[in-house]
Amino acid sequence: MLPVNLITELQQAFPSDRFYTDPVDCYSYAYDNSRKIFPPDAVLFPLTTQEVCHIISLCNRYHVPIIPRGRGTGTAGGSLPEFGGIALSMERMLNIISVDPANRVIVAEPGVLNQTVQDAAKPHGFFWPPDPSSAHFSSIGGNIATSAGGPHAVKYGTTREHVLGLKAVTGTGDLITTGCYTTKGVVGYDLTRLLIGSEGTLAVITEATLKLTALPVTVTGITAHFSDLSSCTKAIVNVMALPQLPSALEFLDAGSLNLIRGRYPDMLPLNTHAMLMIEVDGFSEDITSSIAATLDACHTDGLIHAQQANDTTALWQARKALSPLLKEIAPKKINEDVVVPVDTLPQFLKGLTSLSAHYNLHNVNFGHAGNGNIHVNLLINPDDVEEVARAERCLDEIFDLVIKLRGTLSGEHGIGSEKRAFVSKEIDSVTLNLMRNIKKLFDPNDILNPGKLFPP
Amino acid sequence: MLPVNLITELQQAFPSDRFYTDPVDCYSYAYDNSRKIFPPDAVLFPLTTQEVCHIISLCNRYHVPIIPRGRGTGTAGGSLPEFGGIALSMERMLNIISVDPANRVIVAEPGVLNQTVQDAAKPHGFFWPPDPSSAHFSSIGGNIATSAGGPHAVKYGTTREHVLGLKAVTGTGDLITTGCYTTKGVVGYDLTRLLIGSEGTLAVITEATLKLTALPVTVTGITAHFSDLSSCTKAIVNVMALPQLPSALEFLDAGSLNLIRGRYPDMLPLNTHAMLMIEVDGFSEDITSSIAATLDACHTDGLIHAQQANDTTALWQARKALSPLLKEIAPKKINEDVVVPVDTLPQFLKGLTSLSAHYNLHNVNFGHAGNGNIHVNLLINPDDVEEVARAERCLDEIFDLVIKLRGTLSGEHGIGSEKRAFVSKEIDSVTLNLMRNIKKLFDPNDILNPGKLFPP
Ligand SMILES: Cc1cc2nc3c(=O)[nH]c(=O)nc-3n(C[C@H](O)[C@H](O)[C@H](O)COP(=O)(O)OP(=O)(O)OC[C@H]3O[C@@H](n4cnc5c(N)ncnc54)[C@H](O)[C@@H]3O)c2cc1C
Ligand SMILES: Cc1cc2nc3c(=O)[nH]c(=O)nc-3n(C[C@H](O)[C@H](O)[C@H](O)COP(=O)(O)OP(=O)(O)OC[C@H]3O[C@@H](n4cnc5c(N)ncnc54)[C@H](O)[C@@H]3O)c2cc1C
Repeated sequence: MLPVNLITELQQAFPSDRFYTDPVDCYSYAYDNSRKIFPPDAVLFPLTTQEVCHIISLCNRYHVPIIPRGRGTGTAGGSLPEFGGIALSMERMLNIISVDPANRVIVAEPGVLNQTVQDAAKPHGFFWPPDPSSAHFSSIGGNIATSAGGPHAVKYGTTREHVLGLKAVTGTGDLITTGCYTTKGVVGYDLTRLLIGSEGTLAVITEATLKLTALPVTVTGITAHFSDLSSCTKAIVNVMALPQLPSALEFLDAGSLNLIRGRYPDMLPLNTHAMLMIEVDGFSEDITSSIAATLDACHTDGLIHAQQANDTTALWQARKALSPLLKEIAPKKINEDVVVPVDTLPQFLKGLTSLSAHYNLHNVNFGHAGNGNIHVNLLINPDDVEEVARAERCLDEIFDLVIKLRGTLSGEHGIGSEKRAFVSKEIDSVTLNLMRNIKKLFDPNDILNPGKLFPP
Repeated sequence: MLPVNLITELQQAFPSDRFYTDPVDCYSYAYDNSRKIFPPDAVLFPLTTQEVCHIISLCNRYHVPIIPRGRGTGTAGGSLPEFGGIALSMERMLNIISVDPANRVIVAEPGVLNQTVQDAAKPHGFFWPPDPSSAHFSSIGGNIATSAGGPHAVKYGTTREHVLGLKAVTGTGDLITTGCYTTKGVVGYDLTRLLIGSEGTLAVITEATLKLTALPVTVTGITAHFSDLSSCTKAIVNVMALPQLPSALEFLDAGSLNLIRGRYPDMLPLNTHAMLMIEVDGFSEDITSSIAATLDACHTDGLIHAQQANDTTALWQARKALSPLLKEIAPKKINEDVVVPVDTLPQFLKGLTSLSAHYNLHNVNFGHAGNGNIHVNLLINPDDVEEVARAERCLDEIFDLVIKLRGTLSGEHGIGSEKRAFVSKEIDSVTLNLMRNIKKLFDPNDILNPGKLFPP
């Protein structure tokens, strides 16, 4: 329940179509892709940075939680109002403030969709490299707050590498301006990157200066089918040892391939038990030599066949087929996005096989193998309490394995509420304590997305 | 003067060849490339992270300043013990802890020279992209603390983009571990990049996990001579509008060319009044099309000639000739490294010409034009009080122009003590205050490089 005075002050400042308090209206802002539900007490739709300052100052005065929200596509529960409070939906801050091809910069408000940025950049021969699969329906504010990345991160990096500066409002309602408009700049501390990936816990991003990259001239790809997992993981290591990085290196394991076969019996050879989709791009028309080198790198003992897929539709066919199938089984899976060093992938995936066997769990793995970023899915019956408990024990061991291999617990989805119980496995208490103190500095009353990112 | 008890405790922990207190010994640690002199009261040479923790804990207890130092090549006075205290020389932490080509990672101690990292990476086909001209004699700790960059930053970025994780000791003597070993990772706040560029004011870096990049297969270049400045700046804008970025785009103005002519009368055509050195690299043997496009981009009205320079020695000849000449005039110049958006370079360089004319100053400009990063040199007679005062007024106007054009006051050298008076021109007071509070959090007693980076 919000303080009556706060409601009055907000009603004075915002028309009713930008300030929802009716629980029915608020309900649409109660969930994200984590499938948990926490309705906010109210939803606000600011249109300007000044409005965001005003809202946060008020919430800070009344000690009311404020939960920044892009488009709610996060999978870690990051935008859920766990402790009630106000959902601050940035979805109406939709202006692209400037498109500046000469300097390769777009300045945009946080509600702009990733795809809208791509559309604005494309006519000038540019793109913005962060490419979450959710590009069509996630906001750049959300992308920045999670340091989102996708298949092309293996060559182009994640959001962290593609933002020059930010405007943001801290938990005290203060507006800060970080970074710069140029590609070089070392004046003051790098607050830009401190905010990137901070999941709405330090400040609300109200404007972003995005660094663009030239679209490649040529894009082609290779699909490679393997009779066994270890031949495939060897090929991953080989491909990543080539000097020129692929622009994508995506992996599907036997479990993923079987899911696809269940729906599309003829799409895949029966003896394929692991598969790679490798995209190669470049500025030269002629990338024959990269393709040849990549095909060569795929030639491990268990290679069934590897072939060039000239159009990207053919290249991504299997991966695209998998997506809706995964959505169908959504409530029945625990979905992780751990990362391990690329050369430990063989060991990691073997480890996963034995752990899921040991715990008698159905396990499906796929992901951005070039970054060592694997989406580990444990398929479970959520009503089977015993199975859920087994899955949790299994997950715990998976995380331990990841850390042992010098990996990290999340490559792109972040901590939110879903993974916070495990953060201390990765970050030592001294460093974590410093992070907590940074949080306190930006947000002394713990009103910005309280409870997220840190272990309870 | 150091507290006697502190000296005793340090003598117990360190042999005399790693703990200098004799002013004669200490004097070598009194200066850097800013040409100011501030002798430390003592110099310590730690060998391990544990020793750094011990030293900082002690200094924190006694409230004694501790000034981290790599190799003292900084140009901003960053490593100078302005308020006395202990110079913490990292130059003996020289181990390369691991070279891991499969994962494209080198882990190294902070005293390792940039060039040593390059030498360790090269046999595996890799390099570490940060390329300050001081690579042969600056440390990776110093490179990280300043986010160093060089000519190749236009394509490869600066230090910020090439560090995966750090070990560092805060002002309370606490060891923190930041980032990860993999190319993706979003667990917790990005403390790695908060430390990069923090100039030794937040923590002492004791270990760095460096991300390597594959060496290009082909490197070639173009030298382009122009009869006037504006044709040259137009060409810069044209080259930067090509999709494929050059791997370097260096500029010399008329003043620089005249300095070179003074020593090497025959090196340059007499009618060249501005010059570009453009390096193009790639993974394909054949980069004919990039070279052709780049040559084309150089064709502005005042182009005298542009030609391919196949070996890089020929390409960099003029720039290499300039370096020692600049060193000779060192005490007689004010050297800045401002950055402006690339498409404002024509306007900026024109502005510099009129400002130096207005203030009757001799002005020499060159630099990393592809990043808009220009080294502005005002040549002055340091004994001419009136000229020095004019130069200071001119500089102030130059900085105002930079900010007006949406530029930044430093592209690579940092603030240190040299530029702190101007920081408030660029960073607003709210943001600056937040940075000060971050400093307090990492270093509550202000013992780590006190006085640096912030306006007085
Ligand atoms: C089908 C599908 C595919 C996906 N694929 C990928 C993928 O390939 N890669 C990937 O990285 N992610 C992926 N995701 C996850 C998700 O899309 C990303 O995390 C995305 O960046 C979230 O954007 P959003 O606008 O929906 O943010 P939300 O989900 O609304 O919020 C995410 C986090 O950001 C914070 N936040 C949002 N806006 C702001 C702001 N303006 N200021 C401060 N904090 C803010 C929120 O508080 C929350 O903590 C996928 C999700 C789905 C549903
Ligand atoms: C001839 C010449 C050419 C140069 N060219 C370039 C260039 O092209 N690009 C460029 O960016 N710079 C250049 N520089 C400047 C300088 O070399 C760089 O700033 C370099 O990164 C400094 O490294 P260093 O080891 O000498 O550090 P120092 O000068 O000793 O220290 C620099 C700063 O880093 C801090 N520091 C050093 N080590 C640590 C550590 N382990 N932990 C925490 N803080 C630390 C110091 O306190 C200080 O604030 C040049 C300098 C010279 C003399």
